[in-house]
Amino acid sequence: MSSLERRVAGKRLNRIDGIGKVTGKHVYAADFALPGMLFGKILRSGEAHARIARLDVAKALALPGVRSVLTAQDIPQIRFGTAIKDRTMFAEGEVRFRGEAIAAVAATSLEIAEAAVRTIEIEYEPLPAVFDPEEALLTGAPLVHAGWNDYQALPVFDREGNISGRSAIGGGDVEAGFARSYRVYEHRFTTQHVHPGYTEPRAAVASWDGNGDVIVWTNTQLPFDMKNMLAEVLDLPASKIRVIVPGIGGGFGGKLRVGVEHYAAWLARKSRRPVRVITTSEEELTDAYPRQPTVVTLKTGVSRDGLLLARQGRVILDCGAFANSGPATAAIALQVLAGPYRTPHLAFEGLAVYTNKGATGSFRAPAGPMANFAVESQIDLIADDLGIDPLEIRLRNIYREGDTGPAGETLASVSIEECLTKAAAAIGWSERKPGEGRGKGLACSWWLTTGGSSGVYVRINPDGTVTLISGAVELGSGAITGAAQILAEELGVDLTDINVTDVDTHSSPYDYGAQGSRTAFSVGNACIAAATDLRRQIFELVATQWNVPAASLRLENKSVVGGDKRMSLADVASLSQRMGGGLISHGTSIQPMPVFDPNRVKHHPLPAWTSHSFHAHAVDLSVDSITGEVSINRYVVAQDVGYAINPTYIEGQIEGGVAQGIGQTLSEEIVYEDGRVLNANLTDYKMPTMMDMPRVECILIEKPSVNGPYGAKGVGEPPCIEPPAAIANAIAVASGVRVQSLPITAEKIALRMNGGR
Amino acid sequence: MSSLERRVAGKRLNRIDGIGKVTGKHVYAADFALPGMLFGKILRSGEAHARIARLDVAKALALPGVRSVLTAQDIPQIRFGTAIKDRTMFAEGEVRFRGEAIAAVAATSLEIAEAAVRTIEIEYEPLPAVFDPEEALLTGAPLVHAGWNDYQALPVFDREGNISGRSAIGGGDVEAGFARSYRVYEHRFTTQHVHPGYTEPRAAVASWDGNGDVIVWTNTQLPFDMKNMLAEVLDLPASKIRVIVPGIGGGFGGKLRVGVEHYAAWLARKSRRPVRVITTSEEELTDAYPRQPTVVTLKTGVSRDGLLLARQGRVILDCGAFANSGPATAAIALQVLAGPYRTPHLAFEGLAVYTNKGATGSFRAPAGPMANFAVESQIDLIADDLGIDPLEIRLRNIYREGDTGPAGETLASVSIEECLTKAAAAIGWSERKPGEGRGKGLACSWWLTTGGSSGVYVRINPDGTVTLISGAVELGSGAITGAAQILAEELGVDLTDINVTDVDTHSSPYDYGAQGSRTAFSVGNACIAAATDLRRQIFELVATQWNVPAASLRLENKSVVGGDKRMSLADVASLSQRMGGGLISHGTSIQPMPVFDPNRVKHHPLPAWTSHSFHAHAVDLSVDSITGEVSINRYVVAQDVGYAINPTYIEGQIEGGVAQGIGQTLSEEIVYEDGRVLNANLTDYKMPTMMDMPRVECILIEKPSVNGPYGAKGVGEPPCIEPPAAIANAIAVASGVRVQSLPITAEKIALRMNGGR
Repeated sequence: MSSLERRVAGKRLNRIDGIGKVTGKHVYAADFALPGMLFGKILRSGEAHARIARLDVAKALALPGVRSVLTAQDIPQIRFGTAIKDRTMFAEGEVRFRGEAIAAVAATSLEIAEAAVRTIEIEYEPLPAVFDPEEALLTGAPLVHAGWNDYQALPVFDREGNISGRSAIGGGDVEAGFARSYRVYEHRFTTQHVHPGYTEPRAAVASWDGNGDVIVWTNTQLPFDMKNMLAEVLDLPASKIRVIVPGIGGGFGGKLRVGVEHYAAWLARKSRRPVRVITTSEEELTDAYPRQPTVVTLKTGVSRDGLLLARQGRVILDCGAFANSGPATAAIALQVLAGPYRTPHLAFEGLAVYTNKGATGSFRAPAGPMANFAVESQIDLIADDLGIDPLEIRLRNIYREGDTGPAGETLASVSIEECLTKAAAAIGWSERKPGEGRGKGLACSWWLTTGGSSGVYVRINPDGTVTLISGAVELGSGAITGAAQILAEELGVDLTDINVTDVDTHSSPYDYGAQGSRTAFSVGNACIAAATDLRRQIFELVATQWNVPAASLRLENKSVVGGDKRMSLADVASLSQRMGGGLISHGTSIQPMPVFDPNRVKHHPLPAWTSHSFHAHAVDLSVDSITGEVSINRYVVAQDVGYAINPTYIEGQIEGGVAQGIGQTLSEEIVYEDGRVLNANLTDYKMPTMMDMPRVECILIEKPSVNGPYGAKGVGEPPCIEPPAAIANAIAVASGVRVQSLPITAEKIALRMNGGR
Repeated sequence: MSSLERRVAGKRLNRIDGIGKVTGKHVYAADFALPGMLFGKILRSGEAHARIARLDVAKALALPGVRSVLTAQDIPQIRFGTAIKDRTMFAEGEVRFRGEAIAAVAATSLEIAEAAVRTIEIEYEPLPAVFDPEEALLTGAPLVHAGWNDYQALPVFDREGNISGRSAIGGGDVEAGFARSYRVYEHRFTTQHVHPGYTEPRAAVASWDGNGDVIVWTNTQLPFDMKNMLAEVLDLPASKIRVIVPGIGGGFGGKLRVGVEHYAAWLARKSRRPVRVITTSEEELTDAYPRQPTVVTLKTGVSRDGLLLARQGRVILDCGAFANSGPATAAIALQVLAGPYRTPHLAFEGLAVYTNKGATGSFRAPAGPMANFAVESQIDLIADDLGIDPLEIRLRNIYREGDTGPAGETLASVSIEECLTKAAAAIGWSERKPGEGRGKGLACSWWLTTGGSSGVYVRINPDGTVTLISGAVELGSGAITGAAQILAEELGVDLTDINVTDVDTHSSPYDYGAQGSRTAFSVGNACIAAATDLRRQIFELVATQWNVPAASLRLENKSVVGGDKRMSLADVASLSQRMGGGLISHGTSIQPMPVFDPNRVKHHPLPAWTSHSFHAHAVDLSVDSITGEVSINRYVVAQDVGYAINPTYIEGQIEGGVAQGIGQTLSEEIVYEDGRVLNANLTDYKMPTMMDMPRVECILIEKPSVNGPYGAKGVGEPPCIEPPAAIANAIAVASGVRVQSLPITAEKIALRMNGGR
């Protein structure tokens, strides 16, 4: 089926979840309530690293309206975590960051719960703490987890001291490469803590039934993983846990892991009443899953004409007090650090490091912006030094079709040249005039669409509508609308004919989750499989009725047509219900894993991605010569999406990703001082608003992937990768100031323009 | 697979829904609540047939706490109904029975809603009414629906005057048959209104969302039909309605149609808040779906040795003010009236008739007990007259394998002889001594398992558990446990490994509903289909992993086994999730319809049944010679269940059916006087209690059906068919009194024993 013939896919159709959301009627997890529900509140540590000398909850328990108080003594000591089981629900004996949970209260009102938490008496004995990830690597640094050799952990990563995971990627001989280089450059780049900035706080309601099963309504991105995580923390078989996602107001990777669900579930278990727990802004900024701050050192040897010969690099991720996905994120960082450039000699190392700060996580394109900020800032520094045009030096080095990637994988559907040239053309690259406080910058990257499987159940109803049951949540990206467009296309119905159910682990088929830019990709593939089976059922049933060969039938205008006969899909569904079972089917996505060279990767997690995407950003901005304030005049993104299932929502993803990228580049930072967050509120933590945003010009490139639905590639994560580098490069042109540390605040620029450092 | 090899099917295993129910923690629809929910109450007519002259709800609207008041004026006039669209949500202009809804109120408490209903002012102008179904047939009788020619109706039934449906079945030449008969007998039998007597009242909670969709939590037996019925009444596409059945405390056919759901939904729509409506006992006994009272006249010609030569009969069903399923029930009555006896010349007519009483419905084995009471009482009367043993006369006339049924269908798996002889042997038929106030009675019948399709989705989880998603509700019979046993058998897991989800029309596949003894039968067949596909997936996946032929693999002990290799189902499910999609499948039941002779049926609904069952009841009872009180000494049921999927729950169904049959036979009656129910409470409406029940001895006969899972036949409805006739026959022996009118109260017997009539 060519793009031109498609009626639904590729069209700018309205979202199926749109009306409820724009009218404010959609029920998000934070809106969800049950009769007789209690309200939970968590007591958090006031110290960054200390022994708990005394904990007395007697006053809280005595407060009228309090139904239960939980501390580490009241529940089994269960360690959980992603790469390493290094975390407990409540700090036991020792707190490891300021904000760690120590106790929780359930009461008949939130006010009572908050009051109860304030009555809990606690005494600490301070322990030595470490806050800087490079200091944490020094011999003799305080250990965040002294006894962690006893913890369970994924075997793949190399660990020691405060290093929760070390991985490496590379090949060739970098020393020989440097020796042969015309010049060798070394730079250091740092980035900051950035919060995912989802609109809806993390929220969960838990309720236990008579069989000892628990239902948790929560805004998780990974309902099936959540079920397993809760099984672990609640010490129950997974089959006794049901996770329902009523709606989710953004996640961006910040809602992948248990947040408040386990507190709600344990409090409800103890209270024998439903319990709701919702985070405050303060809790979000002290104990959520923000991006890891990074220190990236990058040493690059080049030929005289700017060809990259050898690159050596180290990424240090400051993961905070618990490893979570840090070790895997460090490994992903190396992949981004390597691409999108051919490099014969490569040696990259990634370290995930513990410090006495809040845990971190897998924020949209984990490690992507940090690694890309280093690579793409350095490329401009090299271009400048060699006197080569920044676009030209990139074009000389980028991957080409069939190249071998850093892990030994063969690259297919490579479109980075088209992305770069189109973004550059759109921003007017060739007509740029540096100076006068205005400049243009470029950055490009690649990214990996996560694989993982998706299953769907599909039902054609006797009113002609179609029900899609998927285990994938709609994060707000429109990805489920995209999958539904594919289903509608395959079944010959309209998008408005498709109903999608809420995700409920009890009844939805398994899905790997709303992560890694995979939802429309993977659910779309499953929809194609389910629709293929349904078409077979439809044609066989009608063929029997009409006594004609099934192959003589076709779908047209919501009907089965053959010869001069026609039967509406609605009538076929009714007929099937009368004859037996109705038109139901299932479909799964089956994605072959890419083949890797085991000699090129060390302590690297099992590669889960399934296809690459390529993109380039170009920005035109002005820098105020007095204040250092940056004004973005134009922002262009050229992104290869493989196939644009719904251009409107893809553009929405690009706009949103650029907004998050601009925030990370210019203003956002969770500011720590001696382990304390100084700006734990949304007034002092500065996310860009609509007023700060330029119009984002989107160029959608469609170079089909080999395995996405209609050639689609993952779309959601990439747009936030390039903004730091693209903007930093433009700022350097506009102001002469090269800032290698995010965020690039006006203050930093102004100080440097005025001779500071 | 022979029965002996089965590990799970055929076993007396505990119900999967058992713990929650016996501990009282199970949430039934009547327990379900939402935050901010309002309480609905219905104002009902105090007249049986009248024009509404004035209706003033102003005081109700003004009452603090009242959120909305609805009357016929506030909603579109939508007529709905099963055979005929003859009913509206609120009486419009004219009430047709005492108890008909006129208005409804939603308020913040039930007390306020009740108070508000009492403030509504209403004036009536009485109209002529008709309460007796035979009077309703007379020329000049008041018409219950004067203008009903304008109503929409199913075309199959013949209608006129107060007859909502007339159907006929037969063949041969009855007059010639009578002419050739040795003797011809004519009798008349009548039966009463009987309430289904479910434990849980009808209950519904409705809540509308921002998209204008409504969710209704209700204890319906037919969630998918409910969705369509609500779509009609709410004037919405069916796709905007979602029906969830949290749990249902019995139905017995009384929860097939809209009961309170439409009131909850309309009140919630108007109030913009969730609304709950639950019926009271008074409402249950005045406006529910009880059995139709019947008048059966039966004229039978026999040969000298008791062979049935010709039978002519008429069944009049008093359906009350709305036809509902009455016309179809009259047609079913003819089927039961014909069987289980060969009759060369047959002419039966069924009439569904309107009267100014409450509507009626399809109570367990609709028309079965009434028709069987006539047939089996008359057989005993004939046997007595001809001096033939009642068992013997039955054995001479019963159907044999391959016989042609009354509608021209070919009968298969006929087991009535075995049922009769085993029941008679168990009760000690040959050693009976009549007289002395004690007697034994026999009755037998056949019944039809309803077809209709079922779909299931099945998922094998990575913890080795299995999720069964079905659209069929568990009425309390254990049928879903039975289907799950079949699924467990097919997948080689334990019953405790199977989780079954609640029914939710949004995500469950279509099911024809919990009716017609079909659930375990039809869902079981769908489970076999889904499991067959899953085994294929499992074997293909493991074959690829092990590089062996799929055909060399087998399931054993929750593992795939091949050669000396073994992989647990849990690991196969995990592997499948990693490789793509997970182990999910769907299955449907496909049931060929029986073939009928169109010359033998007139105005008969499309036959939906799929297999016949046969059964015989035998009772030994005593009658107190002074009071007429009946004491049942022993009660034996021999029932052909085809294959006993779970003997314990089948016995439970038989015990329950006999209890309902005993209630109908001896004590239960909704007593009307001039259209007013005199005993609209559960003190004066006398259902048997545990103290009234004999032990029921169950003989399960397993003559496999051709199309049920493992040969199973429908089980749930039949046990309530024979008690009236079996008990009446035993009473006649014990007391010499033949009562042809149900209920056979002690008072009736005593009056007759003492010379009354």
